[in-house]
Amino acid sequence: MDVELAKQLSTENGTKIVLFVMDGLGGLPHPKTGQTELETARTPNLDRLAQESACGFTLPVALGVTPGSGPGHLGLFGYDPLKYNIGRGVLEATGIDFDLRANDVAARGNFCTVDDRGLITDRRAGRIDTEHASELIEQLRSIRLDGVELLLEPVREHRFVLVIRGNGLSDAVAETDPQREGVEPLVVRATAPDGESTARAVAQFVAVANQILTDKSPANMLLLRGFAKRPDWPSISDVFRLRAAAVAYYPMYRGLAKLVGMEALPAGAAIKDSINTMRQNWDEYDYFFVHYKYTDTAGEDADFERKVAKLEEADAAIPALLAIKPDVLMVAGDHSTPATMGAHSWHPVPFMMRARWNRADACQAFNERALQQGSLGMFPAVEALPLAMAHAGRLQKYGA
Amino acid sequence: MDVELAKQLSTENGTKIVLFVMDGLGGLPHPKTGQTELETARTPNLDRLAQESACGFTLPVALGVTPGSGPGHLGLFGYDPLKYNIGRGVLEATGIDFDLRANDVAARGNFCTVDDRGLITDRRAGRIDTEHASELIEQLRSIRLDGVELLLEPVREHRFVLVIRGNGLSDAVAETDPQREGVEPLVVRATAPDGESTARAVAQFVAVANQILTDKSPANMLLLRGFAKRPDWPSISDVFRLRAAAVAYYPMYRGLAKLVGMEALPAGAAIKDSINTMRQNWDEYDYFFVHYKYTDTAGEDADFERKVAKLEEADAAIPALLAIKPDVLMVAGDHSTPATMGAHSWHPVPFMMRARWNRADACQAFNERALQQGSLGMFPAVEALPLAMAHAGRLQKYGA
Repeated sequence: MDVELAKQLSTENGTKIVLFVMDGLGGLPHPKTGQTELETARTPNLDRLAQESACGFTLPVALGVTPGSGPGHLGLFGYDPLKYNIGRGVLEATGIDFDLRANDVAARGNFCTVDDRGLITDRRAGRIDTEHASELIEQLRSIRLDGVELLLEPVREHRFVLVIRGNGLSDAVAETDPQREGVEPLVVRATAPDGESTARAVAQFVAVANQILTDKSPANMLLLRGFAKRPDWPSISDVFRLRAAAVAYYPMYRGLAKLVGMEALPAGAAIKDSINTMRQNWDEYDYFFVHYKYTDTAGEDADFERKVAKLEEADAAIPALLAIKPDVLMVAGDHSTPATMGAHSWHPVPFMMRARWNRADACQAFNERALQQGSLGMFPAVEALPLAMAHAGRLQKYGA
Repeated sequence: MDVELAKQLSTENGTKIVLFVMDGLGGLPHPKTGQTELETARTPNLDRLAQESACGFTLPVALGVTPGSGPGHLGLFGYDPLKYNIGRGVLEATGIDFDLRANDVAARGNFCTVDDRGLITDRRAGRIDTEHASELIEQLRSIRLDGVELLLEPVREHRFVLVIRGNGLSDAVAETDPQREGVEPLVVRATAPDGESTARAVAQFVAVANQILTDKSPANMLLLRGFAKRPDWPSISDVFRLRAAAVAYYPMYRGLAKLVGMEALPAGAAIKDSINTMRQNWDEYDYFFVHYKYTDTAGEDADFERKVAKLEEADAAIPALLAIKPDVLMVAGDHSTPATMGAHSWHPVPFMMRARWNRADACQAFNERALQQGSLGMFPAVEALPLAMAHAGRLQKYGA
């Protein structure tokens, strides 16, 4: 359903919809056991929920396409990620409540480690702590360039945001992050003619910054990616008529939710804190997006056992979530992150939705094998919210 | 995935992808046994492969749409057949290495048989042999028209290509083949105003050709269809960054592959020759399209038993194909040709893909019933190559 149709059909009725996202949810079989992370984990609450839910798999972007976190979430929010495209820089800036202006260009930065020859040995500078990164950022703030203003903000650990403010700036600048180690950072360059002057400014900043950082190992260099301007999208309150709230600990997910017009509520690191936040704000919103990050982190670290443990931790929170009695509960992932791959993947993502008007479904458990019996099959993630809206009685009939 | 996204995400990595197409693969149950051709055939190798593969059905164009060979293959090659539309004439011309120029109009010709009343009794003139057809073509080459050049080439059996060369030609000309017997050939006519002058030239050619052929029964008339100009499409090497080769015995399939930028390798009529060709050229290409025609021919001839036998013949070649160790192997069809219908049909087409990162799949055999347990469900054929690219590690992440 595109945004125009959603606007036309959506209505309000006081029901509550919850989207619980386990980041990087989907997995692959462990070579020794033939069982995926979800199959290995003991998840009695998720399994019981699957027996009461319509089950299947979401396709975040398209068959074969590995989504980044942005596209993975936008689809679940009801925004076609091939149409609503966003740069990482904007995501990061929005996630730290940075007041990005219409002509600003934002980039995501990483401190990194390079060796004597200038080759990257760690793209994340050993994940230096936030306090240390903040001190380095303070030093980088001394850099002055002609004609543009530079704004630097630490995010978390090795991550920061660079915002360039001035006239005639463009986001047509290529990333300097080669996305792998053992090579040099890429040279700053424009990806289109109108990016030339912005690329020159970025190159000057990088040159001076690297002088400042040279003796600061492990954070002795920086990488920039996702140069982007703030998008101007229709909000979820206009499109789906939902007062929507995001309960997410990590800035990027809050930022993403805010880009579609959700309120970001304060969230603790633990899942039970997120559920408490939701309970306390239950009357104020129609829709809650609750984000659980640790399944993805474990998957990215190729730690099968930890991903299993994190799934079990999420499972333990399900009763508290059900106790709030949402009218529609979706359990979903933004993408798969199989621990065997140690990275995001293209595999369709486990999904279930419990709601009053569900048909009978044959799934007995919540895992990649059992869900193949689900009534929803494999469907575009962007259709999940419209389906939930229908089950919540929030979509009007189409046509007379 | 559209061509622009594929261009953006595709990358190279030295892996090998094989697409093995059994033409007209899908079938329908035999009325006596209730078993399809694939269910009836003994295919131990395909069945074993299904147990190791992600399984499902491709939808070549759209639900309910019966594809011609062109659209059926273009989808599998990763080109949306509703967008990349091609006339049969161009296909045939390209398949015989005819050097089609940008303004040429090509048509596929058939010699046919008409009775005393001018009604078609055999649309294929008893499938006269290629040598005989070549003699007739030589005589038709004597035809001269004002203002345009006529180029005629035999293809195989009753098939030939007519190319009209000149200024201001259009392919807006309707076919003269009524696609059934017992009626007269259709009168040549333009389908749009700018096709009028070309239609007049074609009509003159047909009139003179029919005088020449009148005493040449069974080839005493000709039919023309698929008037078309050469399309200018992005090549598979630009879009998917694949050095791609086609191993196909029949000219039309080589032609089709060449239109998307594949190299056509010499292929014998037997499947084992095709596999030998592939093995000999293994290092030179990243992607091989191997075409097996005989399943379709048997289906079109409504010969259930022969289609079963041809499926078993293909099955016997699978071990040799696996021995070359492709990273990703797709077994697919361009469309269904149920022997009970004796024609192409709209039914979704059996598909399986064996690759390293497959999820566990519940399919125990490769046939229309067993594949309903597959994890891929029913999906657009155009998504098959992107999915294979992902499994080969050749698609980058989308978005941050």
